[in-house]
Amino acid sequence: MTQDPQARHEVPDVFTPAKLGPVTLRNRTIKAATYEGMSHKSLVTDRLIDFHVQHAAGGVGMTTVAYCAVAPEGRTDRHQILWRPEALPGLRKLTGAVHAEGAAISAQIGHAGPVGNPKANGAPALSPSRHFHKTTLSFTKVATRDDLARIVKNHGDAATMAAEAGFDAVEVHLGHNYLASSFLSPKLNHRDDEYGGSLENRARLALEMVREVRRAVGDRIAIIAKLNMDDGYPGGFWLDEAIVVAQWLEQSEAVDALEMTAGSSLLNPMYLFKGDAPLHEFAGVMPEPLKTGIKLIGSRFLHSYPYRDGYLLEDAKQIRSHVKLPMILLGGITDRQIMDTAMAEGFEFVALGRALLREPDLINRMQADARTRSLCNHNNKCMTKIYGGTRCVLVPQPGARPPAQPPSADATQVVEAAERLEARA
Amino acid sequence: MTQDPQARHEVPDVFTPAKLGPVTLRNRTIKAATYEGMSHKSLVTDRLIDFHVQHAAGGVGMTTVAYCAVAPEGRTDRHQILWRPEALPGLRKLTGAVHAEGAAISAQIGHAGPVGNPKANGAPALSPSRHFHKTTLSFTKVATRDDLARIVKNHGDAATMAAEAGFDAVEVHLGHNYLASSFLSPKLNHRDDEYGGSLENRARLALEMVREVRRAVGDRIAIIAKLNMDDGYPGGFWLDEAIVVAQWLEQSEAVDALEMTAGSSLLNPMYLFKGDAPLHEFAGVMPEPLKTGIKLIGSRFLHSYPYRDGYLLEDAKQIRSHVKLPMILLGGITDRQIMDTAMAEGFEFVALGRALLREPDLINRMQADARTRSLCNHNNKCMTKIYGGTRCVLVPQPGARPPAQPPSADATQVVEAAERLEARA
Amino acid sequence: MTQDPQARHEVPDVFTPAKLGPVTLRNRTIKAATYEGMSHKSLVTDRLIDFHVQHAAGGVGMTTVAYCAVAPEGRTDRHQILWRPEALPGLRKLTGAVHAEGAAISAQIGHAGPVGNPKANGAPALSPSRHFHKTTLSFTKVATRDDLARIVKNHGDAATMAAEAGFDAVEVHLGHNYLASSFLSPKLNHRDDEYGGSLENRARLALEMVREVRRAVGDRIAIIAKLNMDDGYPGGFWLDEAIVVAQWLEQSEAVDALEMTAGSSLLNPMYLFKGDAPLHEFAGVMPEPLKTGIKLIGSRFLHSYPYRDGYLLEDAKQIRSHVKLPMILLGGITDRQIMDTAMAEGFEFVALGRALLREPDLINRMQADARTRSLCNHNNKCMTKIYGGTRCVLVPQPGARPPAQPPSADATQVVEAAERLEARA
Amino acid sequence: MTQDPQARHEVPDVFTPAKLGPVTLRNRTIKAATYEGMSHKSLVTDRLIDFHVQHAAGGVGMTTVAYCAVAPEGRTDRHQILWRPEALPGLRKLTGAVHAEGAAISAQIGHAGPVGNPKANGAPALSPSRHFHKTTLSFTKVATRDDLARIVKNHGDAATMAAEAGFDAVEVHLGHNYLASSFLSPKLNHRDDEYGGSLENRARLALEMVREVRRAVGDRIAIIAKLNMDDGYPGGFWLDEAIVVAQWLEQSEAVDALEMTAGSSLLNPMYLFKGDAPLHEFAGVMPEPLKTGIKLIGSRFLHSYPYRDGYLLEDAKQIRSHVKLPMILLGGITDRQIMDTAMAEGFEFVALGRALLREPDLINRMQADARTRSLCNHNNKCMTKIYGGTRCVLVPQPGARPPAQPPSADATQVVEAAERLEARA
Repeated sequence: MTQDPQARHEVPDVFTPAKLGPVTLRNRTIKAATYEGMSHKSLVTDRLIDFHVQHAAGGVGMTTVAYCAVAPEGRTDRHQILWRPEALPGLRKLTGAVHAEGAAISAQIGHAGPVGNPKANGAPALSPSRHFHKTTLSFTKVATRDDLARIVKNHGDAATMAAEAGFDAVEVHLGHNYLASSFLSPKLNHRDDEYGGSLENRARLALEMVREVRRAVGDRIAIIAKLNMDDGYPGGFWLDEAIVVAQWLEQSEAVDALEMTAGSSLLNPMYLFKGDAPLHEFAGVMPEPLKTGIKLIGSRFLHSYPYRDGYLLEDAKQIRSHVKLPMILLGGITDRQIMDTAMAEGFEFVALGRALLREPDLINRMQADARTRSLCNHNNKCMTKIYGGTRCVLVPQPGARPPAQPPSADATQVVEAAERLEARA
Repeated sequence: MTQDPQARHEVPDVFTPAKLGPVTLRNRTIKAATYEGMSHKSLVTDRLIDFHVQHAAGGVGMTTVAYCAVAPEGRTDRHQILWRPEALPGLRKLTGAVHAEGAAISAQIGHAGPVGNPKANGAPALSPSRHFHKTTLSFTKVATRDDLARIVKNHGDAATMAAEAGFDAVEVHLGHNYLASSFLSPKLNHRDDEYGGSLENRARLALEMVREVRRAVGDRIAIIAKLNMDDGYPGGFWLDEAIVVAQWLEQSEAVDALEMTAGSSLLNPMYLFKGDAPLHEFAGVMPEPLKTGIKLIGSRFLHSYPYRDGYLLEDAKQIRSHVKLPMILLGGITDRQIMDTAMAEGFEFVALGRALLREPDLINRMQADARTRSLCNHNNKCMTKIYGGTRCVLVPQPGARPPAQPPSADATQVVEAAERLEARA
Repeated sequence: MTQDPQARHEVPDVFTPAKLGPVTLRNRTIKAATYEGMSHKSLVTDRLIDFHVQHAAGGVGMTTVAYCAVAPEGRTDRHQILWRPEALPGLRKLTGAVHAEGAAISAQIGHAGPVGNPKANGAPALSPSRHFHKTTLSFTKVATRDDLARIVKNHGDAATMAAEAGFDAVEVHLGHNYLASSFLSPKLNHRDDEYGGSLENRARLALEMVREVRRAVGDRIAIIAKLNMDDGYPGGFWLDEAIVVAQWLEQSEAVDALEMTAGSSLLNPMYLFKGDAPLHEFAGVMPEPLKTGIKLIGSRFLHSYPYRDGYLLEDAKQIRSHVKLPMILLGGITDRQIMDTAMAEGFEFVALGRALLREPDLINRMQADARTRSLCNHNNKCMTKIYGGTRCVLVPQPGARPPAQPPSADATQVVEAAERLEARA
Repeated sequence: MTQDPQARHEVPDVFTPAKLGPVTLRNRTIKAATYEGMSHKSLVTDRLIDFHVQHAAGGVGMTTVAYCAVAPEGRTDRHQILWRPEALPGLRKLTGAVHAEGAAISAQIGHAGPVGNPKANGAPALSPSRHFHKTTLSFTKVATRDDLARIVKNHGDAATMAAEAGFDAVEVHLGHNYLASSFLSPKLNHRDDEYGGSLENRARLALEMVREVRRAVGDRIAIIAKLNMDDGYPGGFWLDEAIVVAQWLEQSEAVDALEMTAGSSLLNPMYLFKGDAPLHEFAGVMPEPLKTGIKLIGSRFLHSYPYRDGYLLEDAKQIRSHVKLPMILLGGITDRQIMDTAMAEGFEFVALGRALLREPDLINRMQADARTRSLCNHNNKCMTKIYGGTRCVLVPQPGARPPAQPPSADATQVVEAAERLEARA
């Protein structure tokens, strides 16, 4: 009921500059976080820099370094970037290289909570309540109030380091049943302390995190909250509560923009990734014990949802109608038409993930020709590449070369060999 | 065959005034009855007044106070408004407040019959023939001819009181397998007296009700009949008979407008509410013994039907082609386009339910900008709120406030606590 | 490959006159045969005359009297019109009444073969090969060559009588697995004489019938062949063979127009009637032993096929491309747009069945307003009325009157009775 | 990422001439290879010549003689054309007759590998790894490296003979799990030599074949590679690898154009042929032991996929975006609109199969009237005719004549016979 019909008549061009908190982006497109799997020993690699430079050169207003953990046990991958002083030199090199291409750069920060990888981390995953994790075949550890206080502070520290490293924004991860999101879920959170029960209590951790981040960085960099609006399973966190949490985030004055997402890395990962569920490929590439876990729970875990352009728009509009915070629309952004729709519906930014993996220069080409459509066909096989460097499987890796000649390296020799064979026969 | 092709060329603007019996509505939109669950001890509450004032202020031509029972055993809910002199002061306050906003107000009157709540009412539900009620886990009582005569008279008394209380219209409930509708259903009515058997007999009660209402109020207020056209189960009342009953209602001269509806609160409640069936939520909120009943018959009871704009239009057109009575189109009215279609197809009014729960000011905004579309996403979770005040779950309740600070109320303190923790570790 | 691209540019208006053999119809719309169930003791009734007069008055170019049997054992219903001298006076009255409304009139002639009703006819149904009939629970009798010669001659006699009775056309029934169509079906015809085996042999009976009809009536009246193009079951007669038979019919010079149809009254009756399968109603109204038969084979017999406008067009175009004979398009003709498409695709006429049952004046109204759409909603309940006078169940029968007053005929008395009751309580 | 947005503005007319390697086609339409089943004892027949002359006369720029085997054990059919000197006279007659109609002519060359017919060939089918063949009920033989060298040379010899016979192009078959394609499939190829394992190894055979063909014919005739992009089963060759192989084919400079196809004659033949799966007809016509094989594995083998215009376009665009080689779009080309789309998306040619079987003059008629649409209804019954001369079952074979008169050849006699019968009765 807060929509202003007047506003409808001033639909901005998605390729014009826009402010995101203290930062001005050259246009309203953002490379969404898609876990790169390109860090090594929790540090930036040249490959990770190349990845983001490529996206920056491709035209987006801002690129996002996907999930960097605020604490060791909050990692989903052994080599994942961890916010420590040791990481800063590499991160500075990364932000500088992106800035040199004219784009801004954001860092996704968070704690994986129950999605954490206990084997890689050498520590159980933290969760609001104890449960058995079917993919890692292990029990989670209930986060104590001390754990939570520490993790909240970790978020502030991480944001401070991000600002020091030259990032223009941090994106606080409050989705996908990572720690903050798992606390929001009535299905996962059965606590009876001040972090469980009422929505107020379940949202407490998320709000503490963003407030601490604001306290740490003030207005030096932009703060984005990435919040679930539908966990994707019965009894999970849903739109009705997400609207209220979005309003609380707005009232907290701790965030500059909201990005709504959906699904659960724990219980329904494909709910976000509409399109094909690459079950066959997943079973092949996952490290143990995930591989065994995936095999055990198979297709019950990897559902397949039909793709359509702007597939999160209808839900995100529910949030849009209740807050005035700038919003970033994610999900199925593939051509100019859906971008224009997003702008007309009052979103300030659009975020693209898989479409930019398929074509990093898509934004530049869309600016040159508004009829350009993404070639992404939603096969989601990119999801299966996160352990070896995320990429679209339809983009041949540089260095694809025709096979070397066969042993009888020259075609003439092949023929002669065949002739000898025939003579013998 | 009674359509006049000429009429097609005079399609009225839905936002112009129109006459409904003796009343002139400021426009052709009506807030459909959606049970409010806001009365207390069968009396009006301030909350109920606020609810209708909000809708009146939102722009509708008329709002409808949902189901007020003409007899104690005809209630579906213990606290439901009952037409008694004691209710009049509150009702007068309600009608006055709505009139002050420039809208008219209608009262839905009826007898729930087999849909009645035996536990709340302390009396068995009345029905044309005895049957076991799977949701209330009890047997119904066969309505005697004396019961029927009394209930017919109750309708007249109720309408008289409604007129006295300042209502502009009454809507006689002949749908959803409430009493009159259960008599119409060949599946529920196996009587062999003059109220069973032929359509003439099965329709007798409905016609007696509206005639008695007309006798009671004459032309002082408008009389609407809300009639089923498809009970939604094999062997139920269907379009073929509904056309004839609609013609009889017209010939009776006892009604000023017809509103066609569908489904059965007894056997197929979701048939009217296209969209998602909120089974999970229903099981959670229903009072006993309904909760147990719902659990027992589960998803066989709550089907899910696909939503589309104007989903009752095709069926209602079948009625439209056989009567000249003004008609109100209900079902999936969400934007200007379907409203214009309704007008072009010869309906005089449109009624909106869930869309106005989602956005009470929708009509005002549609008048300001014809492109406005409803945000209602047909999740039907509003249906699960009827015991605590019906509302759209996507409209945060006033008073949603961010959670209080955690025990260590200040963020600085949180950090210090965390630092202490770290020091200890 | 015989389509003439030039022809595409001369698309006629469906409401202009057109020649059908020796007859000129006032427009290109035809009321398709829909069995009326209105004859009595094989003679015309006033009700049947009223039925066709209503359609003639409604604007069609020609109406069709449905299925009149050429032989007693070829009837599907005890009271069905039989081509005998006794029938002529009634038929003359019928044709005269239709002509008086400006429309032409056609008679469908044929032999039901295996679809014949053995109980009503007091004789087994004739078929190309012996089989057990699941709906009539009886065996068919194999038609001898003498039977066939007699039946061929019966067709000529029937056509002669039709001409004498004032009909403008006869429609020879070569579809729905009636006798000629059952001979065409490789699934039903296992003969090893000159009427079985090759398509040439299986088509022999159909060709003999039309040749005999032509021999009998010459060019006095028009001859239409109604030919199946898809029996609707595996191994049945299909498009590939229908194209060849259509070409043979053309080469025979015995027919003036072709009307393509589909389905089998024996094995898949709903294949023609896209839309809902009214199983519940069928079980209720069919006479024994059909009722028992239907119950035994239930929903395996009554499939449901999705409706779409012009649902036979794609198949009929396959025939259209191989013959130059004028063609009548049947199946899902409900508005001006599909009529225009039919004309553009080279069909000379369109035939409407259920749409005209719903609204006999549809053609007149379409001429007055091209936007008029049929109200027929494909519920197919008309099919269940063939034993008591076929009608659309959504058209109330004339004489629908509101129920008589209840015993206490006056509403005042009802109230008084109720007050007495209350006083007693 | 190699798309040039500029190129979009120069969309060629599909009916203008275009170069294909050294050949200039009169327009950009190609009759795709559809196995004719019209050769006899591996030699050309007049019927085969008539077939291609008909297509040439119908307007295509080039017709394609379907699958001619490079080696005896690489045949799929006993009578299939085999590249031997004995075949040249017939082939020369064929190419001459096509050229006389103004069209070019291509020959599809290849080795069927595991798709080979062991019974007809008197030799086991060759495959990369041993497996049991469910349709032929036999084991394949693993191709030795000597086999491969010989077969590569056979390809060069075949191409040389094709050039000598007057063909304008050869199309090297790298699809449908024929030999080269079976080596590409990770599911079928488990070798551990230099022809198995990595994509480089699995693609080695395909690249050797085309290189040898180029070595043999140089630039005298055009070389087309027909490459799978989706085998149609889990674990098969897919788009990601097809892009790389397409790039290698481009780098090899051995091919002038790429035609992308899909499906496996071995494991999923219907994957290419969207539309109906003619299971009933297949079981009837296949020779043993295929008939028994088909019956054993039934509908698991013959899936049915929905048809849509240009059904391979989305996948082929993925290849289009990574190579600059001219490309031929195959699959669901039925009207001018999809042809224009193909041109706009950067394809140089379109290939039509079933649509031209239905209407060999389709191209001419499309040129005369751009609104012409194919009559092909994707019944795929043409697939069941490959053992007796492939044809559309909806095109009556020339010579379809009406059945001879019945024994009593004259209709008058029929009547008299019938009258005698009646007299007797």
